[in-house]
Amino acid sequence: MAVQTVASVGAPAGAPASSPSSDTSADTSAASGVDLGSAAALSCRECGHRVALGPVFACEECFGPLEVAYELPAGDPEALRARIEAGPRSIWRYAPLLPVPADVADKPNLDPGFTRLIRADRLGAELGVRPGRLFVKDDSGNPTHSFKDRVVAIAVEAARAFGFTTLSCSSTGNLAGAVGAAAARAGLRSCVFIPHDLEQGKILMAAVYGGSVVGIEGTYDDVNRFCSELIGDPVGEGWGFTNVNLRPYYAEGSKTLAYEICEQLGWRLPDNLVIPVASGSQLTKIDKGLRELIALGLVEDRPYRIFGAQAQGCSPVSRAYKDGHEVVRPVRPDTIAKSLAIGNPADGPYVLDIARRTGGAVEDVDDAAVVEAIKQLARTEGVFAETAGGVTFGVLARLVADGRISPDETTVAINTGDGLKTLDAVAPTTGLAATIKPSLDAFRAAGLV
Amino acid sequence: MAVQTVASVGAPAGAPASSPSSDTSADTSAASGVDLGSAAALSCRECGHRVALGPVFACEECFGPLEVAYELPAGDPEALRARIEAGPRSIWRYAPLLPVPADVADKPNLDPGFTRLIRADRLGAELGVRPGRLFVKDDSGNPTHSFKDRVVAIAVEAARAFGFTTLSCSSTGNLAGAVGAAAARAGLRSCVFIPHDLEQGKILMAAVYGGSVVGIEGTYDDVNRFCSELIGDPVGEGWGFTNVNLRPYYAEGSKTLAYEICEQLGWRLPDNLVIPVASGSQLTKIDKGLRELIALGLVEDRPYRIFGAQAQGCSPVSRAYKDGHEVVRPVRPDTIAKSLAIGNPADGPYVLDIARRTGGAVEDVDDAAVVEAIKQLARTEGVFAETAGGVTFGVLARLVADGRISPDETTVAINTGDGLKTLDAVAPTTGLAATIKPSLDAFRAAGLV
Repeated sequence: MAVQTVASVGAPAGAPASSPSSDTSADTSAASGVDLGSAAALSCRECGHRVALGPVFACEECFGPLEVAYELPAGDPEALRARIEAGPRSIWRYAPLLPVPADVADKPNLDPGFTRLIRADRLGAELGVRPGRLFVKDDSGNPTHSFKDRVVAIAVEAARAFGFTTLSCSSTGNLAGAVGAAAARAGLRSCVFIPHDLEQGKILMAAVYGGSVVGIEGTYDDVNRFCSELIGDPVGEGWGFTNVNLRPYYAEGSKTLAYEICEQLGWRLPDNLVIPVASGSQLTKIDKGLRELIALGLVEDRPYRIFGAQAQGCSPVSRAYKDGHEVVRPVRPDTIAKSLAIGNPADGPYVLDIARRTGGAVEDVDDAAVVEAIKQLARTEGVFAETAGGVTFGVLARLVADGRISPDETTVAINTGDGLKTLDAVAPTTGLAATIKPSLDAFRAAGLV
Repeated sequence: MAVQTVASVGAPAGAPASSPSSDTSADTSAASGVDLGSAAALSCRECGHRVALGPVFACEECFGPLEVAYELPAGDPEALRARIEAGPRSIWRYAPLLPVPADVADKPNLDPGFTRLIRADRLGAELGVRPGRLFVKDDSGNPTHSFKDRVVAIAVEAARAFGFTTLSCSSTGNLAGAVGAAAARAGLRSCVFIPHDLEQGKILMAAVYGGSVVGIEGTYDDVNRFCSELIGDPVGEGWGFTNVNLRPYYAEGSKTLAYEICEQLGWRLPDNLVIPVASGSQLTKIDKGLRELIALGLVEDRPYRIFGAQAQGCSPVSRAYKDGHEVVRPVRPDTIAKSLAIGNPADGPYVLDIARRTGGAVEDVDDAAVVEAIKQLARTEGVFAETAGGVTFGVLARLVADGRISPDETTVAINTGDGLKTLDAVAPTTGLAATIKPSLDAFRAAGLV
């Protein structure tokens, strides 16, 4: 069988160096012979060093981040397209392009993905984009209402393959809920770690699935450091941390956003994509997914531009982009967009590289613009986005206003989560139009009609 | 073209009388010539009197409830099945069986439906149901996370057909959000009415879409009465109330739950369906949908049983069922399942009829069982249901325990909404497993591993 290695698209020459802070001491010997479909190995994004599939995340040679390398059967693009289109209505339709076993759809999991791609003419009209050119990819339609279900579903398969019995993560909310739900459905234990002073709603959403939710007295950074310690300790034996020792697999889940967007556009690349940036992993993997589709002949090879969106109160990548730097200087987050509040984004340098390589940009907006964008999207398209979505659509508005996104081009902006989880953002400026007695006179007097 | 009238399946002989409380003064003359697909007329469920399609809801002869009568092209079931399967991944794949124009999918709307049907082996194991026999139809995956998106989408088409420019409703939460979102996307104005003392979260969810949300000083019954007054007043001219003057169309949206369940089971009827009962409309229309599928030859004609689920604190239909009555005596609701808290359910008599005709039942559980069922479903399948879902799965557990549902039969239970909207139900018994300092010693001392 002829094979082509698509892994190379994951590591473009000249990518800037990253600085992973965790060790690589995990044992990989147990991982030999695992079945993760067309995933062939882990490959260092920096130096290309390859290791066997296993629960490791940093290169033993250069400490660069490891990512999944594939061996995909070469074949007729039409046949692959047809196979995908006949597949399940979830991310598993793309199973041949993911690090999962071929029978993944038959196992109990949350079956995320294949969310709506919404033609947004009314929003486009307000922003000045031509009808039929602006689309919203609405990932609030996932089982726990954020894109995290995509990445966690892949991590669950890796956890099964490596024999882990407990699923874990550090989280500020969305991820904890996604891990709790996915573990419950898969019959795995879960134990997730969050800052102890999170909003009660986020705690309940994570805890209702029956796993352990542990509050850590400290910041999200403290939670992260604690999880890294736990991996090296006997207490953490048998634990798969979705965003630490399973990160190479987990991160691949974001590629499915690229696949779905192109399939839903009729197997076409959009001209522009606007994507929120927290760690930068999602944007990086969407770019990888697009390049895979081109390499496989599933879409025409033509230019696309990728734009990153950050909140002004946590915009280290946007700042580096504007300053022309290749290094991202960490910041202390202060924004209502808490799910994007990562001050030291691991994939920040890759985001800069992708924005520059594709002719895109990284931009930021302040919290007032975030709230306005949430309400504008709700008012025009009936989509209630979380604050991260507000950041993305606020940046979209600015890019169109500045002429950096043309009103004649096809643009897709991603809503990664659900406004129901960040009600505080709109509470001060949203509410009852009037409170009246149940009478027609009272209603007329209220002056609403 | 040969036609067969499926309307007759909507009005089985011997159905008990209902007692509509609203008048029928709306003018229907403007409605002639409207295009609502295969919907041919409105037909009285009690006396069969037919009137033209229009914004009316009660029979001018007998005050019985009006429902949509269809003229469907007779044809090869295989061809219809193939046409449906090639359709959009939303309720619009069933457009030929709904009161909507043929081009409905091309218009801006929320595209609800085609939600997950989840094989629930882990829940089944706890309840004592054989693997592969229990399924959860999870309607929390709809755009505003409840089944209301289905019914509102149909109401929007009726509103467009009748020239209404404002969409309205009385609501306790889910419906207000669904109407707000659907109106925004469709470019209609919205003005919805709710009890003024609803939880702030539900108010925000409805108001964020930019329509007017009016708080009424009074109970939900007061809100309802006020809306009925408004329809007869010049102030309400041009207003479509989804659950009042558009109710015959709106209610048809629930048929899509029946269609989807059967299609997702491989075009097979389940043996048992467990469905929550508020007004009783959803259960009634699911039964109608199943009988349509049989009449059209899309599924084999074999028996099925329909079970209704109520909360003990608002169980007028369950009480009438147990007492052997044909009349439902109104009650004053007192339950945490607020979206089911309708003390005087309009379709209660039809629910009794369907439960008895199909060999099902109507059962109720107390609030403690509701909470336990929410947590059991979350723990076993990773689905976080709202309180109405807790009622349904609590009743399911009782029916299996009592032997009224056999562990060998195929059973589908419906989760109609999202636990994120009713967090208060689980808050007292859900939360952090521990709060610790970020150290391994502290974690070990917490005794979680």
